[in-house]
Amino acid sequence: MSQRMHKYAFPVSKARKYLEPGPVLLLSSQYQDQHDIMTLGWHTVLEFSPSLVGCMISGMNHSHELIRNSGQCVLNIPSASLIDEVVAIGNCHGDQLDKFEAFGLTLEPAHVVGAPMIAECFASFECQLYDDSMVANYNLFIFEIVKAHVAEQPEYPATLHYTGEGRFSVMSDKMLDKSGDFKPEMLI
Amino acid sequence: MSQRMHKYAFPVSKARKYLEPGPVLLLSSQYQDQHDIMTLGWHTVLEFSPSLVGCMISGMNHSHELIRNSGQCVLNIPSASLIDEVVAIGNCHGDQLDKFEAFGLTLEPAHVVGAPMIAECFASFECQLYDDSMVANYNLFIFEIVKAHVAEQPEYPATLHYTGEGRFSVMSDKMLDKSGDFKPEMLI
Repeated sequence: MSQRMHKYAFPVSKARKYLEPGPVLLLSSQYQDQHDIMTLGWHTVLEFSPSLVGCMISGMNHSHELIRNSGQCVLNIPSASLIDEVVAIGNCHGDQLDKFEAFGLTLEPAHVVGAPMIAECFASFECQLYDDSMVANYNLFIFEIVKAHVAEQPEYPATLHYTGEGRFSVMSDKMLDKSGDFKPEMLI
Repeated sequence: MSQRMHKYAFPVSKARKYLEPGPVLLLSSQYQDQHDIMTLGWHTVLEFSPSLVGCMISGMNHSHELIRNSGQCVLNIPSASLIDEVVAIGNCHGDQLDKFEAFGLTLEPAHVVGAPMIAECFASFECQLYDDSMVANYNLFIFEIVKAHVAEQPEYPATLHYTGEGRFSVMSDKMLDKSGDFKPEMLI
């Protein structure tokens, strides 16, 4: 059983700290009485303020329909200790089972959106759909992160990074602080 | 002085192997007699075939204009050993100096596009602009990777992952092979 993480409020304009390195995400969504979780590897930060992120969510996913109907989701970041849950969630379909129940994950009410957060993930970003103009052509949803929750410790948990063919890279705990070589105006 | 990497042809539909984990990229571009390099952290894979990638390239970058004019670029992936070059390139402006010359990087002719590849990077993906409809609102360029070049060894070099405020995470060499837990049709 994985641990539920205590999270504190984190500035939405700094969400890039966790998303820009490219971790696998667990996206949770809800519409009416249906919720779902999917794995998501295709995402990018797009803007600091409003805090925008683009997510490619294939129409094959049950979550796609829930998000089109609700206009909301939560982007949760699992640490590497959740790899079995990540793989299992990515290999089953959400209209066939309750993924929270099936994989021992805990629903946590979000503060702003109706979609649930996943208590075992170290970060949860509540999202409102901001622009759906690229959904028809690319399944690309642009979300605004409206509320962010991050665990205090560790500051940089080891994250999972998918490389295809069932293989994941794991982020090291090595940080290179090059801030002394940056122009002050670039330190955002 | 960094080493020039010998690269072999790599299938473009598998470019996600290197891009999906979210490394910092060095984007090279050329228009007429001007070339430039910029650092890029905001990108996502969008499709396998055609091999599409979305890149957020701010209008503040000299490269933005070169790409709008040429419709081409190369996405090069530096390993962590190039961190000083990555930081220096991200902290100067390409209309003021030749970044290849200033930072000791080697121009290598691409096979399909006019933009140069960077010989010291372990992977170089030649890109054609595929869709510019999101450039006006989000500076989001959608490129098609038309030719890919990757070094044979190591298979997974340590990559840099930017977290803001001048700090980079470094990818570990730890790989988790969970392919045995995947449905066969998910192993793409």
